[in-house]
Amino acid sequence: MSLHGKQIIGLETLSGESDETFFGLDPRTGESLPTAFHEATADEIDLAVTTARNAFDSYRQTTSEQRAVFLETIADGINALGDVLLERASAETGHPLERCAAERSRSVNQARMFAELLREGSWVDARIDLADPGRKPISKPDVRSSLAPIGPVAVFGASNFPIAISVLGADTISALACGCPLVMKGHPAHPGTCEISAGAILRAVEKCGLPSGIFSMVQGRGHEVGIKLVQHPEIAAGAFTGSLAGGRALFDVANSRPSPIPFYAELGSVNPLFVLPGALAERSGRIAEGFVNALTTGVGQFCTNPGLVFGLSSKDWEQFSQTAAGEVSRYTPQTMLHSGIHHAYLSGVESLKTSTDLELVSESRQTPSPKKAEAGCYLFRTNADGLKANPGLYDEIFGPVSTLVECNRPQELEKFAEQLDGSLSASVHGTEKDLQIHRRLITILERKTGRLIFNGYPVGLEVCHAMHHGGPYPASCHSHFTSVGTRCLYRFVRPICYQNWPQSMLPVELQDGNPAGIWRLVDGERTRDK
Amino acid sequence: MSLHGKQIIGLETLSGESDETFFGLDPRTGESLPTAFHEATADEIDLAVTTARNAFDSYRQTTSEQRAVFLETIADGINALGDVLLERASAETGHPLERCAAERSRSVNQARMFAELLREGSWVDARIDLADPGRKPISKPDVRSSLAPIGPVAVFGASNFPIAISVLGADTISALACGCPLVMKGHPAHPGTCEISAGAILRAVEKCGLPSGIFSMVQGRGHEVGIKLVQHPEIAAGAFTGSLAGGRALFDVANSRPSPIPFYAELGSVNPLFVLPGALAERSGRIAEGFVNALTTGVGQFCTNPGLVFGLSSKDWEQFSQTAAGEVSRYTPQTMLHSGIHHAYLSGVESLKTSTDLELVSESRQTPSPKKAEAGCYLFRTNADGLKANPGLYDEIFGPVSTLVECNRPQELEKFAEQLDGSLSASVHGTEKDLQIHRRLITILERKTGRLIFNGYPVGLEVCHAMHHGGPYPASCHSHFTSVGTRCLYRFVRPICYQNWPQSMLPVELQDGNPAGIWRLVDGERTRDK
Repeated sequence: MSLHGKQIIGLETLSGESDETFFGLDPRTGESLPTAFHEATADEIDLAVTTARNAFDSYRQTTSEQRAVFLETIADGINALGDVLLERASAETGHPLERCAAERSRSVNQARMFAELLREGSWVDARIDLADPGRKPISKPDVRSSLAPIGPVAVFGASNFPIAISVLGADTISALACGCPLVMKGHPAHPGTCEISAGAILRAVEKCGLPSGIFSMVQGRGHEVGIKLVQHPEIAAGAFTGSLAGGRALFDVANSRPSPIPFYAELGSVNPLFVLPGALAERSGRIAEGFVNALTTGVGQFCTNPGLVFGLSSKDWEQFSQTAAGEVSRYTPQTMLHSGIHHAYLSGVESLKTSTDLELVSESRQTPSPKKAEAGCYLFRTNADGLKANPGLYDEIFGPVSTLVECNRPQELEKFAEQLDGSLSASVHGTEKDLQIHRRLITILERKTGRLIFNGYPVGLEVCHAMHHGGPYPASCHSHFTSVGTRCLYRFVRPICYQNWPQSMLPVELQDGNPAGIWRLVDGERTRDK
Repeated sequence: MSLHGKQIIGLETLSGESDETFFGLDPRTGESLPTAFHEATADEIDLAVTTARNAFDSYRQTTSEQRAVFLETIADGINALGDVLLERASAETGHPLERCAAERSRSVNQARMFAELLREGSWVDARIDLADPGRKPISKPDVRSSLAPIGPVAVFGASNFPIAISVLGADTISALACGCPLVMKGHPAHPGTCEISAGAILRAVEKCGLPSGIFSMVQGRGHEVGIKLVQHPEIAAGAFTGSLAGGRALFDVANSRPSPIPFYAELGSVNPLFVLPGALAERSGRIAEGFVNALTTGVGQFCTNPGLVFGLSSKDWEQFSQTAAGEVSRYTPQTMLHSGIHHAYLSGVESLKTSTDLELVSESRQTPSPKKAEAGCYLFRTNADGLKANPGLYDEIFGPVSTLVECNRPQELEKFAEQLDGSLSASVHGTEKDLQIHRRLITILERKTGRLIFNGYPVGLEVCHAMHHGGPYPASCHSHFTSVGTRCLYRFVRPICYQNWPQSMLPVELQDGNPAGIWRLVDGERTRDK
């Protein structure tokens, strides 16, 4: 498949104005992959956003059924891309092909899930408070409201999921589901995967006869393209998954605009594991194996990667540590996503190695190849003093490295939990009795995290209605919102309220007859009635 | 009633460390009212927030029923304050007593409405996706989530509703309803009203045996107290109603924290009126009367005050203008909230008077008394050229002044609508046929506003489930959220997700038996079943 390397501006325009180009690289070799990608110019970015904005009024008036069919057409289109998508994604990220195929399934299933949600229709939170003209001292008006799309959205994909959290990820699909046009910022570490992915969306736009401008994509290696995109006055919201530094910088840009916009960024997270005594007594070996498996999944390049493990000093904890150390030593080094992440990982591990009060317990027996950007797994150990001496341990290091923290008392567990920054998840291994005993610890973790996992591991997110992938900063920039699961639609909508508005002009979900048959809140009662 | 003028820190502490004090002023006389209020010090602010934070873990574990009773106790307590509250509010704001009584009713009803919502319980958006251990290729975990309180909230009341949008307003009541402790920043223009109001909450905290630290209040005249409050690392969210400059400054503080927090600010709005030909032909006089009545309600000091009126040039429009001019001339000048607002109003009106292409059509016949900080009503008129020459017309002037904009073609109406900033509301007077003809205009207004009103006026918000009081910036800082109506709870909660979590440790709303009998989303189906 030959790629063009240009900015995609709706269905009609491909533009490669700038002579500045960059290439996708194979991290396993460091070599350039075919096709030069043009850095988007300010004019191209402006054209993409203006095109999106011009498409908005007609796109937001499409029916839920139209958008459901659109999402299903995208799902079919993703499958129709065939191996070309998987091969390019694998080449640009070092992910094995099976992993790329699993990501593709997630994208396809996700698009279908949102189509189903649109068909069911109740997600719009339709509310009707009926008029009471006779009310004293003043008559009560008829007030109705439901959620409507916010406007053109700027989406930034993640490097670690080139298919499932990039052009074909939940940000894109949920924005399109709501009725928002979007301008994608292609990820510079997998520009070819982005371009191939975009094809599935563009063909669906065409096939469904939707406004051409609802999808555009600009490419760029530096920060400038993203900044210009977020600064554009017609962009109404941003969505981002990636590093704390990059996400925070764009969040700051979004908030310092003359007219600030929400910028939903999912950033760093240490995802602590707490291994409590009852569980250790029962199955320290199994937990250790599960932990190292979670730690090394995807070469540790998951936002939910467990970076700290807390336990109480005991023989069982010692046993747990030894089993984990053995597993770590057997881990075969793997290629990381790109040289930037690889270097950051090496320097993060190096800084741990040279920290005082921190002991390297184990590392991959096999030496990682620097040429192939390989990461070995590392396991460190420390205690209360070490954690105190190294507050940097609370920061995420992206890759397969984790630190065991041995505590002497339950109060120490609580103290360290209290010192954690916001985190996407916390996992607790224990018996139910452990939970009862450590109720105070759980209370603290509820305050610190978006998701609590019992006797499990944080990696491998279930994409469903109840999922929450977000949390207090820096897990995400607004803890009310999630970037995974059906709730993620709520990032791109706002209520519009209609007072004494004529039936014929109301959105279908607010009309008396309830033609969509959805659940609504009528005078405070939940009902599907007319 | 004698006031103490000190910071209220939970139930136990009154603190007046600083020698710097200020007084409430009667705007009708400019004279100080009894009691010196101490400016809060950094230590007092820190103590208030720390006390709130320490109360959070136990407060968020109270039951919905406990919090419902608490809100009802506050409602009773507000009524029990008697005339002292109304008299002080009237003295500090110039509002007539009846207006103060109406505000009190709104506060009382609002507290009861939230109590009812808590008892019904479904607002927590409980979601359950059941496990499927046999699913291939990987088993499906049990995932559940619901909304939980975010943490200590900083609340800034509005000057224009000393009872209904201040200490006893929706921000306070909704934060407490969710389970968030709060630290109130008393409004410097009605510090006495704030202190009296706080009494109703404190007595309810005590009576209900709730954690003492869930309510504190700090006073301060300058910006420093508010800034320090928002900067405090233990504050999890802010809520504000007031001026664009003040709100934006605090929004910027909230976002530039090392750990940013949501700052929900409801700011300026011009609330345009569109008077379409069919309606003008039918009832130009009645619309003009209604408009001037809305314009002058509360001396024009409403966030929903209509600052621009658009119509198409015609005899009927001329008639409308003349009737409105007559109503304006008959308006008796009234005292504004305080000298700062009064001066800003005078200077805003003055700048309109000296603008080119802008004609003063009418003003109150009776001369306003500067000593009494009185505002007269002013009505200006312009056209396309004038609007182009005076882009400042799109900015809110707080007070009873409005400008009629005569357009020549429907396309001009659309063009000006497109130029509007985000607005809390837009009102359209028309026949249903007008709406059909001006469909494009309505589409634009839907994009620009939070609430659309047909044949009515924006002032006088209905406090209900469907109400939305917010909109694109600068109407509010995050258009997803409202500051009026039951949806305003969603500002102070975030989802917490539990994966494979033991029943006994789940929040009651997520337990299998559905003991609370609430509506939940179980495997995507809305149900009240167990």
